[in-house]
Amino acid sequence: MTGQLLRYTSPSTPDQFAPRFSQIATFMRVPVAETIGEADIGLFGVPWDGALTNRPGTRHGPREVRNQSTLMRAINHATRINPFELARIRDMGDVPFTRMFEVEASHDEIEAFAAMLVAENVLPLAIGGDHSVTLPLLRAIAKEPVALIHIDAHADTTDSFQGSKFNHGAPFRRATEEGLIDPAKTIQIGIRGTQNTSDGWDFSASAGMRVVFCEELHDRGPQAIADEARALVGDTPVYLTYDIDSLDPVYAPGTGTPEIGGMTTHQAQVLLRGLRHLNYVGADLVEVSPPFDTGNVTSLAGAALAYEILCLLAEVRAGSATGKED
Amino acid sequence: MTGQLLRYTSPSTPDQFAPRFSQIATFMRVPVAETIGEADIGLFGVPWDGALTNRPGTRHGPREVRNQSTLMRAINHATRINPFELARIRDMGDVPFTRMFEVEASHDEIEAFAAMLVAENVLPLAIGGDHSVTLPLLRAIAKEPVALIHIDAHADTTDSFQGSKFNHGAPFRRATEEGLIDPAKTIQIGIRGTQNTSDGWDFSASAGMRVVFCEELHDRGPQAIADEARALVGDTPVYLTYDIDSLDPVYAPGTGTPEIGGMTTHQAQVLLRGLRHLNYVGADLVEVSPPFDTGNVTSLAGAALAYEILCLLAEVRAGSATGKED
Amino acid sequence: MTGQLLRYTSPSTPDQFAPRFSQIATFMRVPVAETIGEADIGLFGVPWDGALTNRPGTRHGPREVRNQSTLMRAINHATRINPFELARIRDMGDVPFTRMFEVEASHDEIEAFAAMLVAENVLPLAIGGDHSVTLPLLRAIAKEPVALIHIDAHADTTDSFQGSKFNHGAPFRRATEEGLIDPAKTIQIGIRGTQNTSDGWDFSASAGMRVVFCEELHDRGPQAIADEARALVGDTPVYLTYDIDSLDPVYAPGTGTPEIGGMTTHQAQVLLRGLRHLNYVGADLVEVSPPFDTGNVTSLAGAALAYEILCLLAEVRAGSATGKED
Amino acid sequence: MTGQLLRYTSPSTPDQFAPRFSQIATFMRVPVAETIGEADIGLFGVPWDGALTNRPGTRHGPREVRNQSTLMRAINHATRINPFELARIRDMGDVPFTRMFEVEASHDEIEAFAAMLVAENVLPLAIGGDHSVTLPLLRAIAKEPVALIHIDAHADTTDSFQGSKFNHGAPFRRATEEGLIDPAKTIQIGIRGTQNTSDGWDFSASAGMRVVFCEELHDRGPQAIADEARALVGDTPVYLTYDIDSLDPVYAPGTGTPEIGGMTTHQAQVLLRGLRHLNYVGADLVEVSPPFDTGNVTSLAGAALAYEILCLLAEVRAGSATGKED
Amino acid sequence: MTGQLLRYTSPSTPDQFAPRFSQIATFMRVPVAETIGEADIGLFGVPWDGALTNRPGTRHGPREVRNQSTLMRAINHATRINPFELARIRDMGDVPFTRMFEVEASHDEIEAFAAMLVAENVLPLAIGGDHSVTLPLLRAIAKEPVALIHIDAHADTTDSFQGSKFNHGAPFRRATEEGLIDPAKTIQIGIRGTQNTSDGWDFSASAGMRVVFCEELHDRGPQAIADEARALVGDTPVYLTYDIDSLDPVYAPGTGTPEIGGMTTHQAQVLLRGLRHLNYVGADLVEVSPPFDTGNVTSLAGAALAYEILCLLAEVRAGSATGKED
Amino acid sequence: MTGQLLRYTSPSTPDQFAPRFSQIATFMRVPVAETIGEADIGLFGVPWDGALTNRPGTRHGPREVRNQSTLMRAINHATRINPFELARIRDMGDVPFTRMFEVEASHDEIEAFAAMLVAENVLPLAIGGDHSVTLPLLRAIAKEPVALIHIDAHADTTDSFQGSKFNHGAPFRRATEEGLIDPAKTIQIGIRGTQNTSDGWDFSASAGMRVVFCEELHDRGPQAIADEARALVGDTPVYLTYDIDSLDPVYAPGTGTPEIGGMTTHQAQVLLRGLRHLNYVGADLVEVSPPFDTGNVTSLAGAALAYEILCLLAEVRAGSATGKED
Repeated sequence: MTGQLLRYTSPSTPDQFAPRFSQIATFMRVPVAETIGEADIGLFGVPWDGALTNRPGTRHGPREVRNQSTLMRAINHATRINPFELARIRDMGDVPFTRMFEVEASHDEIEAFAAMLVAENVLPLAIGGDHSVTLPLLRAIAKEPVALIHIDAHADTTDSFQGSKFNHGAPFRRATEEGLIDPAKTIQIGIRGTQNTSDGWDFSASAGMRVVFCEELHDRGPQAIADEARALVGDTPVYLTYDIDSLDPVYAPGTGTPEIGGMTTHQAQVLLRGLRHLNYVGADLVEVSPPFDTGNVTSLAGAALAYEILCLLAEVRAGSATGKED
Repeated sequence: MTGQLLRYTSPSTPDQFAPRFSQIATFMRVPVAETIGEADIGLFGVPWDGALTNRPGTRHGPREVRNQSTLMRAINHATRINPFELARIRDMGDVPFTRMFEVEASHDEIEAFAAMLVAENVLPLAIGGDHSVTLPLLRAIAKEPVALIHIDAHADTTDSFQGSKFNHGAPFRRATEEGLIDPAKTIQIGIRGTQNTSDGWDFSASAGMRVVFCEELHDRGPQAIADEARALVGDTPVYLTYDIDSLDPVYAPGTGTPEIGGMTTHQAQVLLRGLRHLNYVGADLVEVSPPFDTGNVTSLAGAALAYEILCLLAEVRAGSATGKED
Repeated sequence: MTGQLLRYTSPSTPDQFAPRFSQIATFMRVPVAETIGEADIGLFGVPWDGALTNRPGTRHGPREVRNQSTLMRAINHATRINPFELARIRDMGDVPFTRMFEVEASHDEIEAFAAMLVAENVLPLAIGGDHSVTLPLLRAIAKEPVALIHIDAHADTTDSFQGSKFNHGAPFRRATEEGLIDPAKTIQIGIRGTQNTSDGWDFSASAGMRVVFCEELHDRGPQAIADEARALVGDTPVYLTYDIDSLDPVYAPGTGTPEIGGMTTHQAQVLLRGLRHLNYVGADLVEVSPPFDTGNVTSLAGAALAYEILCLLAEVRAGSATGKED
Repeated sequence: MTGQLLRYTSPSTPDQFAPRFSQIATFMRVPVAETIGEADIGLFGVPWDGALTNRPGTRHGPREVRNQSTLMRAINHATRINPFELARIRDMGDVPFTRMFEVEASHDEIEAFAAMLVAENVLPLAIGGDHSVTLPLLRAIAKEPVALIHIDAHADTTDSFQGSKFNHGAPFRRATEEGLIDPAKTIQIGIRGTQNTSDGWDFSASAGMRVVFCEELHDRGPQAIADEARALVGDTPVYLTYDIDSLDPVYAPGTGTPEIGGMTTHQAQVLLRGLRHLNYVGADLVEVSPPFDTGNVTSLAGAALAYEILCLLAEVRAGSATGKED
Repeated sequence: MTGQLLRYTSPSTPDQFAPRFSQIATFMRVPVAETIGEADIGLFGVPWDGALTNRPGTRHGPREVRNQSTLMRAINHATRINPFELARIRDMGDVPFTRMFEVEASHDEIEAFAAMLVAENVLPLAIGGDHSVTLPLLRAIAKEPVALIHIDAHADTTDSFQGSKFNHGAPFRRATEEGLIDPAKTIQIGIRGTQNTSDGWDFSASAGMRVVFCEELHDRGPQAIADEARALVGDTPVYLTYDIDSLDPVYAPGTGTPEIGGMTTHQAQVLLRGLRHLNYVGADLVEVSPPFDTGNVTSLAGAALAYEILCLLAEVRAGSATGKED
Repeated sequence: MTGQLLRYTSPSTPDQFAPRFSQIATFMRVPVAETIGEADIGLFGVPWDGALTNRPGTRHGPREVRNQSTLMRAINHATRINPFELARIRDMGDVPFTRMFEVEASHDEIEAFAAMLVAENVLPLAIGGDHSVTLPLLRAIAKEPVALIHIDAHADTTDSFQGSKFNHGAPFRRATEEGLIDPAKTIQIGIRGTQNTSDGWDFSASAGMRVVFCEELHDRGPQAIADEARALVGDTPVYLTYDIDSLDPVYAPGTGTPEIGGMTTHQAQVLLRGLRHLNYVGADLVEVSPPFDTGNVTSLAGAALAYEILCLLAEVRAGSATGKED
């Protein structure tokens, strides 16, 4: 497009100074990748909710998080990080599913997509989708057991439900069994809500995970928990998984398994900003379910927390980026 | 039903392991009572809002609290209480009104229903309905003046409105006058919001009630308030009444008289969990108004706080249960 | 329950004279069945949406249709049929799923549930659920090829999607192949909306089905279409399947695949009332998706049209009922 | 106010050329009356819903109809009537209730308010409120039996409900008994929906009312029905009562007793515009329930149909106005 | 992207067989243009609402129409047109505004953007935005006075409002004055709603436009109106402008100036399908205001009617395409 | 109006004891002013949003804040201030715009309206409208540089956007340049959210403003911030401007530029109540955007915080009122 009138190189390349309601919605208004290798960090959607146990709709999560993420601008007011200056960030599109009705086949497709990024040294930041998708993401990313920072209302270490051991309440039990995560370097933050058995909590405890119930977070504050998480993880390659239901249902009504008494977005921001300078190998934000949202507050919170995670990744990537040129 | 395929004895007996969106919605997915006497604790609805002064709709409260209560599971993660193991809990249905347009006649029907339960030694847990319904419930339950833990944005000790002294702003003035509650063992928690006269606050004070304005709760924290309430009540038979508008309008938009600056659900949980081991004679949760709700957050909060109250009652009931066999 | 105060034999047996916002919500406020055999017509839910291709949520359909169906009363103003006098109608609860993530296993469970009813001579009226559930229902019901009256925006005779030939766009192709329906006695009414290929429409045509596109219905009117359907079906045992997306998205926003230009509820009523005195062997109403609904209009329309279908079934059942006593 | 900057004589006198989202919302943006006698036609609210049988909220009707009525402009595009040129139209405020919990006392207050207007020769146009309010309005207005044009989904000629014979399903039975209306000159239009008994329909029929079920309206069209109504009424003083639930639930979700298969707003407009030049003694529009509305479509329809009724009244008033000077 | 796993050439090139909730939302899921000249038909957004007079929000229209347009598939069921086979259709992005607070400067930017497309022989299909944007679009497109098919609730031939003669109620008065349209070959369809003066209707009439009030459309049916429009326009180059408020507020609550009594989407489809084989030089669909929408029905209707318009354009373009190769 | 039945002198004078859903909605249910001079404090609306940069709708703010403000009663429970006893408070209506599409012309009209009040010694309390309106308000009010207490998520000291230096992100940069505020006596509280450049924050800092980011407010608490603000301002004439987006998006979804991590309404109340006894010359509450609200929580919060501000103003006014008689 010759288009000297146009402010953009291409309409698929919106920028952050345009009016925020305009242009095609990509994650954070970054360009869509034309090649995998052009990205340092790859944002992508996992529009799949085939393993959830209650209210559906997270298949619509990536679309609406893209939409609300156009409200984000460049510089973090608290840390003054500008991730877009630190790393080449691209929207990689969504995982293209071809067997969406089958849990394990879909997991394979997620793994394959993430593996493509990993193969080209792109740091993945996935937007779900139900929480079961973290398992195939870990399979693609974790060459050896990684540390895990897991922020969620649920430990997700229960076992089979309705005959599937890959349901969205079980990924970290499976990841432990498959040697993808190191339970001794795993911290679960924000856990709460009733359960029918104590099986999941028991598994987390016996596997050696540090479980921070949300009451403890409210008592000690998110900064103290972040400090503990950083100390626990140390230099180990670490994966960060953020379940939007860690937030209180008021901050995240648009999710499948809401539990009252949760975190505020301010607490979530303090927690995430306390996790800088770790050796991130990937991250995700999951369980945004737009059909249950009101006023888009959940998608907005998802977008804004994904931005915080992006700052964490970009800072690390900038420090370690060596073999790539823009 | 022969039904070897069915997981349930009867479709009216859903269980807590079924997918939560399935089956007929009863309170907490407990069985519907077939006889009054089979229950230790009876959950029942009071779908009546004929004495409220502003926005209507709490007549729809029991139905939607039932609906959202299907999201509840068995074990309390904080206290590890499983109320369903401690007591036989049943859904008793709703109070069947026959004179719904008349305040006093309706109050009589509520009293009669609750009296049936009391007569068979069933501990009542009512889901309202507007707050005026607590007066007839107390009439059925309080054989002598009981202690009262009253969590609410409003003291509900004003006098007549629009010619009725039984409106939903007045039940605890009436209960004091009728000798149903002991004002010296009454604590009102979370009070806030403008008033046209100071008459209600003045009545509470002069009667000797302890009034904890919500600012004090925010300052001292809910645990301190709970401790004070427990000390005040001691061993006295006590009734617990929970008005959902004690929560901030953000946590409970679906109510008739919202007042900003209220409690969070986390504060409510801490407060309620601090009230264990009291000598409960009954309880209610009132003022959920689904037509004003958004995203069902109010009904969900109502269900989850009713679950917390159920844990309190079940623990006490288990300790005192003697004359009943399942 | 001794309960002389109670107007009901049991709280699980609400009646149609009670205030409609009160009591536990069963389909049309009929009693929950205690045995299968006590029913002439069995209303039951199929809370499953594991085979849909776009927007999810029909798993929540039965619960909300139950809720809105409490607005229904006894007598049809147009036909003066009172189905509750003509037949013993019961709520049979929901199909109890144990393998909800697997399409074919879930279909088996649906079939088994319906087969239980058929075995005891109960006429089934299912509330879905996605439209794929009609296939297992037909497997349970159609001992030989049945006629089919199929009201829908989509012919649902496409083939595999995402690797599954049992997705919700394909049940009537499968039913034809399995010999469950007689395509020469099949009429599809209300069809419209874009398609990526003409494959489904072509299959319907080549199989010999009568396809009434919605434009034809608007032109000729629903009475003419009903007349044609009755003539086509004659005395053949016939199954009636009603997809709520046959209604315009304004009348049914709460569905997964809305298509503009659809039927009004008045047209749907005229159409259904024109289908009296056929030899019904079963029926369903599917694709109500509460998470996408606004103001409950879809659930209300679903309940009201299910009531119309119930009138059709009850009238037939009353005429043919011989071997059962109440 | 000196206010040469202000376009208005007073901020309480907004005009129809101002931006429609601006200024204090009065009915149709007419001035608030300073004296009763200054008005030819008095619009007033009846914010009371104490006699309804199902979903509440019509007490909020007047406020929201005022709000949406600011979208109305002056000239009717179909009839070219400009009611504001034909008559002095004023907002009289709302009936000021002092006994809102008591059905009969509230009815007395409504009657007294309307009587004040009638006494000063002001033609009343009331905005409800539940439909029971038409009874006291008729008591104030009908010095002898008046003709009645009654547009509604329900005949409202049933008898007592929950012990009250003044509930909102019974006003026209009572009005017949009290000699306020002439059943032989009464036409009920749009009737539909299930009933538990045929008692109301039977009363209407046996009293001699003309009952036009909504199916007949759909078949013959609203113009034919209007013609019949005009012929039936002739020169008799006539009262027009419009229940918003005559509209289909899609056009009026915000009402207490929705019934599918109803009128469109276009049909309602044709019907009302067909009722010109009758001898109107008063009118009302009732049953708008904002808490159940979506996107304000019900309040908007209520405002726009109230405008159509206002055109009918203004035209008649202009023709007959003699004894008043502006 | 090497991406043999990916089904798409590029993530910016979604296709219509992917699950509809997945991938980045472009208009109709067509590729984003990389050069202007690669398109036969260019869909683009005009996210600007700076000249509307009442409720704002159409600046958000293009984003949400893109979102809902992903529900569209390829083949029109009524005409069997597949526009994607007939023409190279691209998403050109949005007009990039740099002076959004200034009406005339913004109009210039719209004109310049459209002129770029026209210069490269791309047939423009714009998605608004408020209706004032049609004026600059016509300036870019109409080299001589064009015929105009204008579907709308409002004639939009009023004059200045609040000091601007370019407000969204005036574009066709300006277009007449500027010689952009031939009023003798202009038809305005669906007009209705109150006005404060008859000035706009009078201008249309005196200029020689054919004004079809919505009552006439309801009476004669949309096919007859379409026939008349085709006869009026003949072979003259013609511009089609579709204001979503031509639909009834129930079909299009999400718009700034709703008027009851409007068209159904079925009527709109029949009308548009009746306008085939005209000599289109451009088209737009305007006034979708997502903040006022409920359940996305307006955006869905907008997307589906834009698809119908696209079919009209593609068919014509296919017939006339000569100088371009794909 | 003789009206002995009426409780009110006039229907335009509602009082605070009437049912809150009744009567015409004025701010806080105060009388509409008949003359400017009759008021000590003048509440007025500024229904204009022509300078905002993202989501529109604040033009609808005054109407809905009026609506929700009818929930307010007289006495502040925390301070026991009754502003209605301390000062004559009136609703002055809305600024009557005549050039709404032009930023600077509209600003002039706002200034002129406020100047009228100032000229008659009326203390102005404006309800916006977008935040740009504070600039013309200051022009009318600040005869010399005033101190400024500015509560907001954004510093609003950026420069031109889209060619206008008067956009809603810039008023306090302009006010500094115009000498309307004293930056050394300016405190900005609650600032947060991403920015594309640090230009605004840098301007605030270099101009000498005290900027309290929201993290600091969460850490130190609102009382400490209020104490600091009072010390900073001292006896200087001070203007208070409250942007509703200072609240978290959960408390104020209905605003144009939401930023997570914001204040709770409780924090806002503590903050405002900590600002008593300052030398207020005016105040505003801006950026309530009803089209983006859910459940009216934003309008309710806006009304309740406007009430808190009213208490501040009334107390000061009562102390200083000398030259006026009621």
